[in-house]
Amino acid sequence: MDKTQWNERIKLIEAALLKELGAETALVPRLAESMEYSLMAGGKRLRPILVMAAADAVGARGTDFVQAACGIEMIHTYSLIHDDLPAMDNDDYRRGKLTNHKVFGEALAILAGDALLTQAFEVILRQQGVPAQVLLEVLREMSIAAGPNGMVGGQVIDMLSEGKRISMEELRKMHMGKTGALFRAAIRSGAILGGASEAQLAALTTYADCFGLAFQITDDILDVVGDEAVIGKPVGSDERNEKSTYVTLTSLDEAKKLAADTVQQALEALEIFGDEAKFLRDLVKMLLERNK
Amino acid sequence: MDKTQWNERIKLIEAALLKELGAETALVPRLAESMEYSLMAGGKRLRPILVMAAADAVGARGTDFVQAACGIEMIHTYSLIHDDLPAMDNDDYRRGKLTNHKVFGEALAILAGDALLTQAFEVILRQQGVPAQVLLEVLREMSIAAGPNGMVGGQVIDMLSEGKRISMEELRKMHMGKTGALFRAAIRSGAILGGASEAQLAALTTYADCFGLAFQITDDILDVVGDEAVIGKPVGSDERNEKSTYVTLTSLDEAKKLAADTVQQALEALEIFGDEAKFLRDLVKMLLERNK
Repeated sequence: MDKTQWNERIKLIEAALLKELGAETALVPRLAESMEYSLMAGGKRLRPILVMAAADAVGARGTDFVQAACGIEMIHTYSLIHDDLPAMDNDDYRRGKLTNHKVFGEALAILAGDALLTQAFEVILRQQGVPAQVLLEVLREMSIAAGPNGMVGGQVIDMLSEGKRISMEELRKMHMGKTGALFRAAIRSGAILGGASEAQLAALTTYADCFGLAFQITDDILDVVGDEAVIGKPVGSDERNEKSTYVTLTSLDEAKKLAADTVQQALEALEIFGDEAKFLRDLVKMLLERNK
Repeated sequence: MDKTQWNERIKLIEAALLKELGAETALVPRLAESMEYSLMAGGKRLRPILVMAAADAVGARGTDFVQAACGIEMIHTYSLIHDDLPAMDNDDYRRGKLTNHKVFGEALAILAGDALLTQAFEVILRQQGVPAQVLLEVLREMSIAAGPNGMVGGQVIDMLSEGKRISMEELRKMHMGKTGALFRAAIRSGAILGGASEAQLAALTTYADCFGLAFQITDDILDVVGDEAVIGKPVGSDERNEKSTYVTLTSLDEAKKLAADTVQQALEALEIFGDEAKFLRDLVKMLLERNK
């Protein structure tokens, strides 16, 4: 895994995010502050990194699409702010920092989320250097992924199944919406922006779905074996909250095996690519070594 | 005012909205129910009507743009759901019906709002019969109007100025965001979709800003002189909540005069148009006779 390249890209993304915030939110400084608090709270920037890596994989230059990449990070951040709200997961901490509503109050947290989601589309719309038709396709990917049949739908399923034991099939459906859809949109958007062929797009979609699944399984594993100080939230919360996860529905060992198999499938999907997909390969392999 | 035409268009819009909901939310029926509850709660459908009327004014056929018109109604509806939340205005009733969170709970109300906002973009993206570049422009109008420098920004200013006496200048800025921006986006989008010239777009933008202002002033007047049974919410709430309004900052008579002057300005902006703008003229004049 080329950590240098990753860190360089994180810097690029974060500089672009700050620029977007500065340009857009001068009207109401308190709102800008709340948006920035969550948007600049660190994190792996995995979704924008995936946008760029997918573009690289199809032979384009990933860094040309930092604008669209920023948009997806804003959508991701809005979803975290709303998920943490008292009416939802009621979390006080996120990545070791107080959650948005703990700092800015519930009303402003709701509005900062709304603002980030809306501005995300504006930011994507300012992506340069691609035909209008391509930009429309990317916006379509993003809006479908984030909407009622994607991220929001998954969140509702999660909410409605709290305290219930759900089947492996329902668990998959929930995560396909809650986290999978946005990973898929990130990777497909990068591919579309980079001018992917049909075959490349199909291969990357398979990769994306495996990536999302492996991400979720390893997330569930981390909740059992993770180091609180490193992941920034208490471990064992899934078991305490009687949440169905890939670990609670099977076992730790089986979950680890499923994660490894899924990563293997993701790698197989990339077989049609050469060295341009090295970063994507490294990224999915890295999931098996996650410590946060 | 041609009420027949209005009612026909409302039917067209509502049929399209129902179709969008059905197609999109099958995954999670409870979420679909919550979205539909608020989206189909009636209302004047003023924003989609304005999209179509603006397209008519520039010589296009307004009904061709029902798709984009639906998108803006979904954005408007999301904003009402979130505004009513306990953490925000904490309203129990809207248009004489229980608010979304009173029926579906706070978490689902937040998520239904999020889903409507996101799906709005998807719905607009499915607008047919316009060049890709035009659709991108419309999406830009909508995302800027609904975002941190528009609707959400106005809502934050409103929240932060609660219980304070603000200046007429601040009041204008707040409403320009909170309600004005979306009226502007509706009218400009309709004009852009209809192929407006620069001069037509400029005239309709002036009309839009006057329309938004007159709408707000007459809204403030209604809060004083309205009939509770007709407007579907208690009158006199602005005074009780010590809200700054066009009435409390001036007087009922002055507010009425300002409304009439603003409507006159809107009509003057339409002077470059012929009969195609009759509906827009009727619409703004109707504001002076609002009873809800």
